[in-house]
Order: sequence, then structure tokens, then C-alpha cells
Amino acid sequence: MRSTALHTDRYELTMVDAALRSGAADRRSVFEVFTRRLPARRRYGVLAGTGRLLEALESFTFGSDEIEYLRSSSNLAPETLEYLAGYRFGGDIIGYPEGECFFPGSPVLTVRGTFAEAVLLETLTLSILNHDSAVAGAASRMTTAAHGRACMEMGARRTHEGAAVAAARAAVIGGFAGTSLDEAGRQYRLNVIGTAAHAFTLVHDDEESAFSAQVAAFGPETTLLVDTYDVATGVDRAVAAARRAGGELGAVRLDSGDLVAQAFRVREQLDELGARSTRIVVTSDLDEYAIAALNAAPVDSYGVGTRLVTGSGHPTAELVYKLVARENSAGVMEPVAKVSADKASVGGFKLAGRVMGGTGPTAGTRSVAAPEGAGPTTGGDGGAGEPEVPAGATAVEELIVASADSAAARAELERTGARPLQVELVSGGRIAEEHRGAGAVERARARLLESRAELPYSAWRLSEGEPAIPTRHLAV
Amino acid sequence: MRSTALHTDRYELTMVDAALRSGAADRRSVFEVFTRRLPARRRYGVLAGTGRLLEALESFTFGSDEIEYLRSSSNLAPETLEYLAGYRFGGDIIGYPEGECFFPGSPVLTVRGTFAEAVLLETLTLSILNHDSAVAGAASRMTTAAHGRACMEMGARRTHEGAAVAAARAAVIGGFAGTSLDEAGRQYRLNVIGTAAHAFTLVHDDEESAFSAQVAAFGPETTLLVDTYDVATGVDRAVAAARRAGGELGAVRLDSGDLVAQAFRVREQLDELGARSTRIVVTSDLDEYAIAALNAAPVDSYGVGTRLVTGSGHPTAELVYKLVARENSAGVMEPVAKVSADKASVGGFKLAGRVMGGTGPTAGTRSVAAPEGAGPTTGGDGGAGEPEVPAGATAVEELIVASADSAAARAELERTGARPLQVELVSGGRIAEEHRGAGAVERARARLLESRAELPYSAWRLSEGEPAIPTRHLAV
Repeated sequence: MRSTALHTDRYELTMVDAALRSGAADRRSVFEVFTRRLPARRRYGVLAGTGRLLEALESFTFGSDEIEYLRSSSNLAPETLEYLAGYRFGGDIIGYPEGECFFPGSPVLTVRGTFAEAVLLETLTLSILNHDSAVAGAASRMTTAAHGRACMEMGARRTHEGAAVAAARAAVIGGFAGTSLDEAGRQYRLNVIGTAAHAFTLVHDDEESAFSAQVAAFGPETTLLVDTYDVATGVDRAVAAARRAGGELGAVRLDSGDLVAQAFRVREQLDELGARSTRIVVTSDLDEYAIAALNAAPVDSYGVGTRLVTGSGHPTAELVYKLVARENSAGVMEPVAKVSADKASVGGFKLAGRVMGGTGPTAGTRSVAAPEGAGPTTGGDGGAGEPEVPAGATAVEELIVASADSAAARAELERTGARPLQVELVSGGRIAEEHRGAGAVERARARLLESRAELPYSAWRLSEGEPAIPTRHLAV
Repeated sequence: MRSTALHTDRYELTMVDAALRSGAADRRSVFEVFTRRLPARRRYGVLAGTGRLLEALESFTFGSDEIEYLRSSSNLAPETLEYLAGYRFGGDIIGYPEGECFFPGSPVLTVRGTFAEAVLLETLTLSILNHDSAVAGAASRMTTAAHGRACMEMGARRTHEGAAVAAARAAVIGGFAGTSLDEAGRQYRLNVIGTAAHAFTLVHDDEESAFSAQVAAFGPETTLLVDTYDVATGVDRAVAAARRAGGELGAVRLDSGDLVAQAFRVREQLDELGARSTRIVVTSDLDEYAIAALNAAPVDSYGVGTRLVTGSGHPTAELVYKLVARENSAGVMEPVAKVSADKASVGGFKLAGRVMGGTGPTAGTRSVAAPEGAGPTTGGDGGAGEPEVPAGATAVEELIVASADSAAARAELERTGARPLQVELVSGGRIAEEHRGAGAVERARARLLESRAELPYSAWRLSEGEPAIPTRHLAV
């Protein structure tokens, strides 16, 4: 894999340069990835990209090409170039597993290392997590809106060619059944689908010969696109083409017009023709709202393009990468935070847990928004006598415990019975195998299904509203 | 470069499969890239990505890895895999030069070859042109809104890591002065800028030591970020840090709060401190509207992130790739078009020209929208007696001439005195050198400046409205 080390904003390199000179480069530091808010109408976020980030991290080294580029095009000191030439991330990263739901303030990724080694990862980390989480979040809304009908990703043509591969991966994590994009299929072993475009009908002398050609190649179980000319005529011809080949047509695809009305008409026509097993696939300008509106119509599956790969109105998650703690000149770790009114953050290393209904001190408070900032926990004891979280338990709170002492934070989380949310991703520079590679996609998809199922029903709403559960910050 | 051939939607491969079987694969075909409409509030589009497409086309071959993937994961016939293994685009491509403005219906790219060889390029072509044109279009609006003040691209963290590189390139085509992203600087020899984030201030024990460290590394002409704590105090400390190093501070950067009000306060403070040469850079959540609002404020340059790389509300251009003509079974070229009400297109091979004010038959008609569909030209003769297009001439119409005979179309364009818009990009599979590589960015940027300057003033408006010039279709 080509070096990923220049997927870096120049200021990260200049900060390393100046910090090497000031001595701050070696200070132990904690950077945190979180979002201050969810996009409008989003009740939860879906973390995606972790597996890709870990793969990219492996190639985050400055080889001779990268160093030569920097030497010739920057004002970095020779000592800085030397530091970069020897750079390899040697710190620790914990984070929410890929596919986990998140909320405002959730510490979805925490990077610990020296200031210099951790600050360099800002841009690459955010590029990957912001893009993939935006798509996975949109995909999750679409798949819940589809209520079990299959959704297929078809948006490659509407996004950057490399982003398209990552978008297909994120869509599958968000519950999509597959993609149209072969490069994504190859890289992540995704289910790839596709039959024909209008061009295939148009290149033939008439619709009948096009349909016959496609059925000859792929059998009657193929999907025929019936709206190049007249839809009703197209459906007749499609069913006939399949029957001439001795079978019943697999599906018809509708890619234009009023899909709800057309789906009813086409279903009726198919049934009248006796083609009751022939399915209806729709693919024109869909998003979660269009899918919800089509739920009442006799549609079997959805192909989604533009709105999926562009995050359905929110093409980037608003995740930021902030220094939240660092060693001071006396060698003591201290929380730090920017104080600007509109971009304030909560300092300190944090552990996070999802508090479940009936099992912790916050049971019954699910409709109460958590206060801004940290405060002491109140009520309940969540002790050993409490029952296990039952199957079908409902999440009631995102509890985020800041502490200079991670044992104390862990004890506090345990006390509340919260489900711990962070897993070890990188330890002393060693990247955990189980969170990357093709298998990571399946695991992330399963994680989302489980995590989403725990959320209260409001999480499934498409309308404006508060996050599905409130976030509570605590300092111990 | 790695093979780009699987940046392909599966249906392109299945269409080739079925067309090889039906015999349609060899039919001479013409595919056209165009948009049916511009996004809301856009008065013109900016074509970008052509250079990247030509580079990607060079690697569009199916090697043994790609063939093996398809063999193991698709139902393509062995004959199809054999065809793909030998595939190399051998046709012709003409198109608008990168950086050229376009309008609804503009044939920005025309691909001619056999059906099979041309249909395979759909997804890659659209991915690249849709993404890059979306960013370049947004960038162009921002740079006109900035009225000569420098705009810098800083959005890498808010888009896919590969898309970020292309976005920086497109932003520079759209008039941006540079980027923060080193990988983009390396790949396209762009100007790369960057100094420090809030983390740099926070990692030091106090703001003063952070500023001193940065000035020690980069001299007093650096840009100091002054809003980590209190802005007024930050400005005092920043100016003092530069002066301790024996110079005047280059610039201060503001990244939060009410930028207009702050810019006035900070300018006043800098002037009172005698730091009249110290510039003000602003960088928080900017788009073309925020930039327009800041024009009245004493700001020297803009750093733009999220809204730029996500196309300022339109993360993808709506370019489509449609079969517009093909050989029939008798070997005669025929125009073809889908007839669906909401996705109709105009068939036939087309040449396009921009008609300039006072030089052609359409002079004086600039406020008249062109009728839908093709019709005969009327009035004027635009003959040899007409004056040359004067410097500073204004475009009045996008004239698109469809014809089975390109000599006839060319003659018609010449008759109107329109500026021909298409250039040869690929000829018999040979890719033109002058439209790719790092030099292509500079040329595209220059093309946009010229093309944009020809448009009527309404092109610069940020509000809702019609395209800056109407499109007229003509068939000869």
C-alpha cells in the first residue's frame, strides 16, 4: 500500500517542527475524536471507517519519496525531516468498535502517544471517519425506513471514485445488502449486483431484442429495466421474453417517474400476467423519505445512489480531533480544552458506557436531557444485586466519565452497570487484527444491528428531534 | 498506477456480456456526458476532472487480478472475460476543456467507440467529473464572492482521504490559491499552507510559550492562531511574540465566534498596536455566503473547509452518461434517446459553441430562454462581414448542434460565430498529453477565469435564478 503519511494537513507537520524545537513534541498527549452535535434529524450517529483507518495507519510512514517532497516544498527543519523519516505510530488507540452508535460527546476514538506522534494522525483519521460515518449513518436510516426490504448501494457515479469504494463498504455496515461497484466488491468481498442500463435497450434496434439478448445471457431470472419507452409495454415484453426462454422473469426495474403509482400499476399488471413471482426493484433518486413513502407500495427492493453516498444531506460527519489532555512541564497529565464559546470541548481522558434501562442509577430518566458539562452521579447503586441487562433492554444514556485515572473511570462505569463502549484498537503501535480486513465489515454490520436495536423507538424517527439518548458527562 | 478498470458498476460488465452475445457490442456508439439542470442557485457549472479522467483512462485495463476477481465472483461468460482481458479503449473522446463553464445540456464529454468499449467507461467517468465539477463549481462561487482576497482550501478532514486530494485540485481550478493538504501538493504541485492548530497552543503550558515556540520555528512572519483562550489577549501576545523575535507578525488567524465583528475588533487592535502590516485570516465554517458577508470586514484571506469539499450543498454535479447515437443493424448511425417524462434526453452526436454578444444571430436574445428540444435557427446570418468577438465580449447563448454529420454541425457553428467549445482529448485510443498532468491544473484554472469573465453579470449572483445564459438545441 502506498504511504498514507501525506494525507496530512501541512499544519500538523509545522506543529511537529515547532514542538520539536520547544520540547513539547515529547509530551504525552491524549487526542479524542468526538462530535459536538448530530446533524439535523439524526437521532444517533453510526461510527464507520475504523477498519480502514487501521489499514491506513499501517502505511503511515514517511519514505524517501515523502521526505524528498517535504524537503523540496516546505520550510521544515532538517531535524523535523529526520524525525518524520523515523516516524511510526507507537502509541495506543482505543475506540468504539466500528458499527457502534454514537451521540454528541461520545469519545469514538482516543489516541494516546507523544504530542508529535499523535498530532500527525489528525487529518487521515478525520477524513476516514467523517466520510464513512456520514454514509453509514445515512445507510442506517434508509435500511430502517425500508423495514426489511433489501437496499442496494448504487451511488459510485455520484461520488469520487475512491470515496465510492469506501461508501459501498460503509453502506453495507449500515445494513445495505450489496453494491453495484466491482472495486468495492473486490476490496471488501461485498455482494455485487447489476444487470443493464437504458443504454442496453437503446443500443439494440428495439426493446424486444434487448430483452431477449439479456435473457439469453443471464436467464429468465434476470432483472429487466422496463422504462426506456412505455412502462406497460415494457412489462409485457419483459414477461414475454422470460417466458420465451422457458421461465418466469426475476424482476423488473423502474428508474423514473412516480414510483409509488407505477409500482402499484406494474404489480397489478404482473399479477394479471400471472407473473406473481416477478419482483419490482425501484432505483430513482431514493433517500430515506422516499423509501418510507414507498413502504406502502408493492416494491421488493431499493437501489439507492446519490443520496446515500452523499450522506443524505450531510456528506460529512462533524467529528473533530482534539487534544484533551497532556503532560505539563512537571510531567503531570492535565486535562486541556479550548474555551471559545462556540467550539468548547470537555477536557480529560474519558471512558464511555451505554447505560441500559433498569440496570443503573439513571433508569427512568430516559426523557430527561443530561445537563451540559460534568457533574457527580446521583441516585441508585447499580451494585451486584442488580439483574443482568435483559435481552431487548433499552439504552437510556450515554455516560462519559473523565478521569486522569482510568481505573477510577472504569470502576465508576462498572458501578453504573453501563455497557463499556471502547475496545483496544492499537496497543504500543501494534494494530489489533480483529478490527480490520474484510471480516471487519461483517462484524461492524452486526455491531450496528445490535446497537441500534438497543435504542429507544425515537431513534427510528426521520423527523427533527433530540438524540435518541442523552449524553451525561461525569468527572471522577 | 493501479488498474482503474473495476471502478465500474457491475451492470456495465453484464451489458458487455449480453451485447457480445447479441452482436450489439460492436455497434459504433456515441455516449455523451451532460447535465439536465444546474443545482439550485447555480448560474453556471465548472467542468473539472478531465485531466484526472485521462490519467485514470490510461490504467483502465483488466489485468490478471481483475479478471480473476470477475471469474470468481460474477456470472460473466468466458468470452466476456476474454474480451475484458484484451480491453483497451481505442475510440475517440472530445470534450470541453477542463475549467470551462457549462450549462444544462452542454455536451461536456463525448465518447465514441464500439458500444462495449464506450459503455465500460460510464462509472469512472462520472465519478471523476461529478466529484471534481461539484467542488470546482463551489470554489468558483467562493472565489468570486471573495473579490480578489485569497481563498485557501482546508477541507481534507471533512471528506474521504482520496476525494480530498481531488478536491484540493478542483478548488485550485476554481480559483483557490492553495491547499492545506500535502498529498495534493505532492500530486499536483499545488501551493501548500499551514501553521498551527489549537492543539499546539494547548500542548504548551501557556499561550505565550506556544507563540514563542512557533515564532522561533518559522519567524515573525508566521500566522498565529489567537482564539484558543481570549482573543484580545491572544492578539497582544501574538504581536509581542513576533516583536521579541525582531519583526512584525505576519498574520493572526480567527477560527471561531462572530468573524465579522471580531475582524473589526482585531483590526482595530492590531492598528492600535502599530501592527498595520499584520494580516487577518479567518477560517471557521465559511462558504460563499459567509465570504460575501465578510467582504465588508477587514479580512485578508479565507480558509474554507467543509462547505468547499462538499460542494456547498451540492456534493455531486448531476452529470449523466447517456447513449445518444448508435449504428443500427443496417450499419447506419441513428440518434437514440430515452423517452421517460422526467429523464428525457436529446439524441444525436453534438457540437457546441458559445455564442458571443453582437457576433451572431442570437445577439440581443440573451434574456430569452431557449425552447426545449431542437429547432431550426432563425434570423441573422453571422457571416463574414461580422466583427471579431471583441475583448470583454459577453456570452449570450450555449448553442448545441446535433447532427449525424459533424462537418455540417461544424459549419453551422461557424456560421453563428460561436466560440467552439470542444477539444480533442483521446483520438483512436491515444490520450492527448496537453490535457493531463500537473500543468493541466494551471491551464484549467486559466480557462475558468477566461470563461467566467465572458459570462453576463448574473453569473456572479448567489441567489436563485436561471442559468447565466440559455441553452439552445439545433439539429442540422
